[in-house]
Amino acid sequence: MSRFDQLPPGDLFKALEVASPSDDLPQINALLDAVRFNEGGLLPAIAQQFDSGEVLMMAWMNREALEETLTTQRVCYYSRSRQKLWRKGETSGQQQQLKSAALDCDGDTLLLQVDQTGPACHTGRRSCFYVSLSNEHAAITSEPLIDPATLYGKK
Amino acid sequence: MSRFDQLPPGDLFKALEVASPSDDLPQINALLDAVRFNEGGLLPAIAQQFDSGEVLMMAWMNREALEETLTTQRVCYYSRSRQKLWRKGETSGQQQQLKSAALDCDGDTLLLQVDQTGPACHTGRRSCFYVSLSNEHAAITSEPLIDPATLYGKK
Repeated sequence: MSRFDQLPPGDLFKALEVASPSDDLPQINALLDAVRFNEGGLLPAIAQQFDSGEVLMMAWMNREALEETLTTQRVCYYSRSRQKLWRKGETSGQQQQLKSAALDCDGDTLLLQVDQTGPACHTGRRSCFYVSLSNEHAAITSEPLIDPATLYGKK
Repeated sequence: MSRFDQLPPGDLFKALEVASPSDDLPQINALLDAVRFNEGGLLPAIAQQFDSGEVLMMAWMNREALEETLTTQRVCYYSRSRQKLWRKGETSGQQQQLKSAALDCDGDTLLLQVDQTGPACHTGRRSCFYVSLSNEHAAITSEPLIDPATLYGKK
């Protein structure tokens, strides 16, 4: 039992603001009921390489994708363009093994620590964040590790 | 001049997929015209502590917030609840100094490298991502550095 068990889902994250590492938290299903998916039923999920700290990508999850990710330890997103579950690496082979996951203070964003096989980006680059912007100029910051035509079986 | 200058904004990020660090990119305003803000005119922005790699928070920017951030080097978001620009730290003093910024491959997410003064989270914790989730249980992973009542002048 947890002192947070009796709360309605809409009040849980507010109550957790003052919780401590020593507190017992509600069961996972109660947490998932309280996650603030957006009006499309989706949650932004940031993937960070667990050992180097590099931020690899941001994609979206619905509740089913989040539950599958926690169960299988293999990261599954929801593809907004294809409107279906997207098991990262299912075409390219570039999977993400889940190391840990954490929700933010208001329960509407997820941070994943992952072990990424090869490039995370569909362009063949390690990270999706390669268009740097400053006040003066923009620049490309990385080259593909692998030709995307190879990744997606077009070669 | 850049070989990407003649492209309509909707085609720019697709064309940049094959660009290299040696390429001249379009002027910043052309990049900003191509950024894929969502239907609410907003872009998710991830803030990462530049030296430790810790992911601190995710918030939203409109074009005005992004332009101000690049110009002043002090991170400015758009508060969806208050519906106005939110200069991070304006109430709490916990500012973010911009070190660098990068858009992702499809131009719809921003990664900021920042130097965060004190806690990034309104709960007084260093990072907003403190509710860890696994298949078996949830836990709080950090304590506040500072009482939020002190941060927000209620004490």
